[in-house]
Amino acid sequence: MNVGIVGGGQLARMLALAGHPLDLRFTFLDPAPDACAAPLGTHLVGAYDDPGMLRQLAAASDVVTYEFENVPEAAIAYLSGHTAVYPGARALAVARDRWHEKSLFRELGLPTAGFRAVDDLAGLKQAVSELGLPAVLKTRTLGYDGKGQAVLREPDDVERAWQQLGGVPLILEGFVRFAREVSIIAVRGRDGELRFYPLAENEHRDGILRSSRCRPADGVQVEAERYARAVTEALDYVGVLALELFQVGDALLVNEMAPRIHNSGHWTIEGAAVSQFEQHLRAILGLPLGDTRALGHAAMINFIGAVPPAAQVLAVPGARLHAYGKRPSPGRKLGHATVVAADAGGMDAALSCLMALV
Amino acid sequence: MNVGIVGGGQLARMLALAGHPLDLRFTFLDPAPDACAAPLGTHLVGAYDDPGMLRQLAAASDVVTYEFENVPEAAIAYLSGHTAVYPGARALAVARDRWHEKSLFRELGLPTAGFRAVDDLAGLKQAVSELGLPAVLKTRTLGYDGKGQAVLREPDDVERAWQQLGGVPLILEGFVRFAREVSIIAVRGRDGELRFYPLAENEHRDGILRSSRCRPADGVQVEAERYARAVTEALDYVGVLALELFQVGDALLVNEMAPRIHNSGHWTIEGAAVSQFEQHLRAILGLPLGDTRALGHAAMINFIGAVPPAAQVLAVPGARLHAYGKRPSPGRKLGHATVVAADAGGMDAALSCLMALV
Repeated sequence: MNVGIVGGGQLARMLALAGHPLDLRFTFLDPAPDACAAPLGTHLVGAYDDPGMLRQLAAASDVVTYEFENVPEAAIAYLSGHTAVYPGARALAVARDRWHEKSLFRELGLPTAGFRAVDDLAGLKQAVSELGLPAVLKTRTLGYDGKGQAVLREPDDVERAWQQLGGVPLILEGFVRFAREVSIIAVRGRDGELRFYPLAENEHRDGILRSSRCRPADGVQVEAERYARAVTEALDYVGVLALELFQVGDALLVNEMAPRIHNSGHWTIEGAAVSQFEQHLRAILGLPLGDTRALGHAAMINFIGAVPPAAQVLAVPGARLHAYGKRPSPGRKLGHATVVAADAGGMDAALSCLMALV
Repeated sequence: MNVGIVGGGQLARMLALAGHPLDLRFTFLDPAPDACAAPLGTHLVGAYDDPGMLRQLAAASDVVTYEFENVPEAAIAYLSGHTAVYPGARALAVARDRWHEKSLFRELGLPTAGFRAVDDLAGLKQAVSELGLPAVLKTRTLGYDGKGQAVLREPDDVERAWQQLGGVPLILEGFVRFAREVSIIAVRGRDGELRFYPLAENEHRDGILRSSRCRPADGVQVEAERYARAVTEALDYVGVLALELFQVGDALLVNEMAPRIHNSGHWTIEGAAVSQFEQHLRAILGLPLGDTRALGHAAMINFIGAVPPAAQVLAVPGARLHAYGKRPSPGRKLGHATVVAADAGGMDAALSCLMALV
């Protein structure tokens, strides 16, 4: 079977590593000549909306998926007309626009921070008066890793934020003073079967995920699963979906969804019986889903801007290295390490050792 | 770092799958245009003793290893003169000739079946008179998966076996009525650090490994480790080594060694903390060795001649599929499945389900 992936970055790379043992072949569409998934399949070097490239990708693929949600709508529409595409166009349309996303959560009765669509400065001022400060102004589309966001703390910040981000569709969201950020990875098969991994507790720095710790039997697991079930069933979703949540007191607020394998699920490669990558492939191919059980106390740390020497990473007890083969650059995700330990203390100790390397 | 592999079959393929996360790139030398490792690296299509190909392989590689022991000696000599080669030439020279192999075991004081070198029919008759019948006549080199062997049960079999195998250097070995066959996988680093996996109990059919079951805390583990330690230290070995043993009563007889990753260690991909493939790469690159602990009750079944549909394999609880992407052919190893279960009963049940598929 041939799998096409829109995007050839580390998520595509890890999908391919999970898929070769299932005798899958991969074709990646990515404009970067040095896309890091390229050594694991056929690389179509071209823009995501290049008609000739999309034609080649569709022709080469029994099923197409994607590693990021900002795929041009026209590209997904073309691909959907010529081959199977999972997750489907509706999930992508919702996920690529923060306002549509939050609106879906509200329609489904899921708790979120307050939000308002913002199209001009007057609208921003109106939204601020309704939601209060602090608040966060975000572009509705194309934001990731904290890009396309501004925090408004005082009235003077309103014009400044508008200067920074205005001119594209925006959303203003109430600022959430959360106790912690968690995410849940769900996988839903073509037959509707739904499974969940234990949720991950995430630490961000400068808007970029720094580390995730798997938290089996966490008190909010059931609530997180209920929200992820509502979203995936409403979208008749197929594949892996990540739902990011804020915990405030004992309650969860839904922040955003990612219609794809997700950085906060990288711990599953060694830390779960079957990884999120293999699960995504099983789901989109209509194969039986695998076991989502955690194999121990697992965690993941991202390597951003530089990857420590392999000898240092692998000297940490229980640590495994995942270097993506990307050119180093400040702020760029270049790899990650996972740890799996028999107890929480061992996991924390190993994670501390890894954090000392970066 | 660039790793060269002599051979581009499933062992090379699984090495590459384990090595990409360590940011390794692979070059395979294999005469078969459809070598199944090829999609995971650069494939040099040529004979193992082709000087131009060997020059290219050495130039492309920081370190060279191999996936089978029948590499021409001249090839290893050339490669060793131009780049690092692990395991070293001496280990290969010993392992490629059953008589040298058995002689090493004897020099080290390890118990083996009786054996005699056989160069002509008179020598064979002499050896039979000394070892008795039944006995097994084998080619000293190039045998694998039961090929190049004949069992001698009665005096009349002597001439017949000679007709079948004579003309190349042979070895006659006493026939061992073993209670079971086990193997131990050892890994030794460039600094001499040595680790062992729990031993595997192996079932062969028609000379080909059919299944392996990991047996943690087995009664003969300590003895098997002692033998593997003697062999690896005598050879100043670097990398993964498999030692195959017969159990007779409570004692072990050493049968043969493989200076490479080994089929009876495939269970380690999901069944151990770090797989034999990653360990081999860590060892030959001088990186810290990983944890060899079993993660549960693990087993492996080979798919020979045909691979069952993925949907059937993955429907078995705890089963994982490894299809090698090879053209089907009777008697050819095309893939394997592993199972990891919480208890022995679960493992046996899953293995039975998998055996029913083949």
